[in-house]
Amino acid sequence: MTSEAYLSRGVSPTKDDVKAAISQQDPGLFPGSFCKIIPDPSGDPEWCAAFHADGAGTKSAMAYLMYRETGDCTWFEGIAQDSLVMNSDDLLAIGATGPFLLSNTIGRNAHRIHGNILVGIIAGYDKAISRLAEYGIKIIMTGGETADVGDLVRTVICDSTMMARLPRNKVVNIGAIKPGLDIVGLSSTGRAIYEEQENSGLSSNGLTAARHLLLHHVYAEKYPESYSETIADDKVYTGSFLL
Amino acid sequence: MTSEAYLSRGVSPTKDDVKAAISQQDPGLFPGSFCKIIPDPSGDPEWCAAFHADGAGTKSAMAYLMYRETGDCTWFEGIAQDSLVMNSDDLLAIGATGPFLLSNTIGRNAHRIHGNILVGIIAGYDKAISRLAEYGIKIIMTGGETADVGDLVRTVICDSTMMARLPRNKVVNIGAIKPGLDIVGLSSTGRAIYEEQENSGLSSNGLTAARHLLLHHVYAEKYPESYSETIADDKVYTGSFLL
Repeated sequence: MTSEAYLSRGVSPTKDDVKAAISQQDPGLFPGSFCKIIPDPSGDPEWCAAFHADGAGTKSAMAYLMYRETGDCTWFEGIAQDSLVMNSDDLLAIGATGPFLLSNTIGRNAHRIHGNILVGIIAGYDKAISRLAEYGIKIIMTGGETADVGDLVRTVICDSTMMARLPRNKVVNIGAIKPGLDIVGLSSTGRAIYEEQENSGLSSNGLTAARHLLLHHVYAEKYPESYSETIADDKVYTGSFLL
Repeated sequence: MTSEAYLSRGVSPTKDDVKAAISQQDPGLFPGSFCKIIPDPSGDPEWCAAFHADGAGTKSAMAYLMYRETGDCTWFEGIAQDSLVMNSDDLLAIGATGPFLLSNTIGRNAHRIHGNILVGIIAGYDKAISRLAEYGIKIIMTGGETADVGDLVRTVICDSTMMARLPRNKVVNIGAIKPGLDIVGLSSTGRAIYEEQENSGLSSNGLTAARHLLLHHVYAEKYPESYSETIADDKVYTGSFLL
């Protein structure tokens, strides 16, 4: 996919301006690691900790479309799971295996996102935490915030922040990657034992472009609240697929 | 201000539906406390911890208007400070005085919010952390996420998540409030020694309504991206004031 497919839809594929904005920030204990690693909050010199923030991104626009088409709020459950695992996977990349402490931030337009949808999102967090617990991954929900920010958010945005402690000798220090090491690749297709259905092969990034490239333009007129008016009309839902 | 002034602008003044959605969540170690209090992540039985998530809310729409009128990205610095203190003050309400661990989540429409604005927000965090450090309040920036979510966010949303540990015997347990205790009130006007200018008397909540009730309708045509199209036109920027 060309970067133009992203840029024309308001997504920077390189985030160069973001990298520049944070270039002066403290790199933490292990510069170059996938997450900033900080000293252990409780002061144990043998341990360290990391926070990670991420969310479901524009996938909640997809859940919104499915909800509007079906009236089923449970479509939002997957948004919570996605928002959660976007953090646990990145923390795993530095060697953190939990317990994970989880907080969420939900921003909504209360004119479009009612309480039953919030119930769906919260249920999604509970179910994801329970399912991962079956596989020995401990996640503790520490609370969160649901803000009515309709002047900022068209529908709903669901972000999560996760924290984990780990022994410093268990850190996967990406800054130490060097020639001669093996690279292990995992397929984004197929189905893991803990997954309920086959993966599409589409990964978590680039779904703004994928949604616009695959979905039929009929949804542009039907749900204008599901995309930015800064996107040229001939870039909005340009595909042939119906939900 | 009537609740209708909020509701008509997509803000629930009571958040009853939010409270219902989370009513089954674990209340933590001190039910009724202002933040959910959890066991210490490092397992010290004498200590506990709390996370808090909050953000600048629609005040970033105000910063956006000032930025568009002046071209000055530093208007966004205050958004970062607001997003930060909305958490430190609530954690203080349970007795946590720091060190505080801070993470942020910025969601933007990359078509409207360029890198210089992100620089302004990051600078705002750095300045707020430095100013509070002068008064003995230690805040450690742990990183964050800037997401391009133009299909969800009209301009920019700036949220923060903060965590603190504290001794259990220092917890301000709001669940233990009873008749006979004193209530101390602080003015939202005037100026504290650590503040650079007089306070307006407007507090952090209700600013969506305040913005629409005070600002002149000229900004409705000029910056339609600064408010929700779900708000009736006669409720948008209904005041007499110019920026």
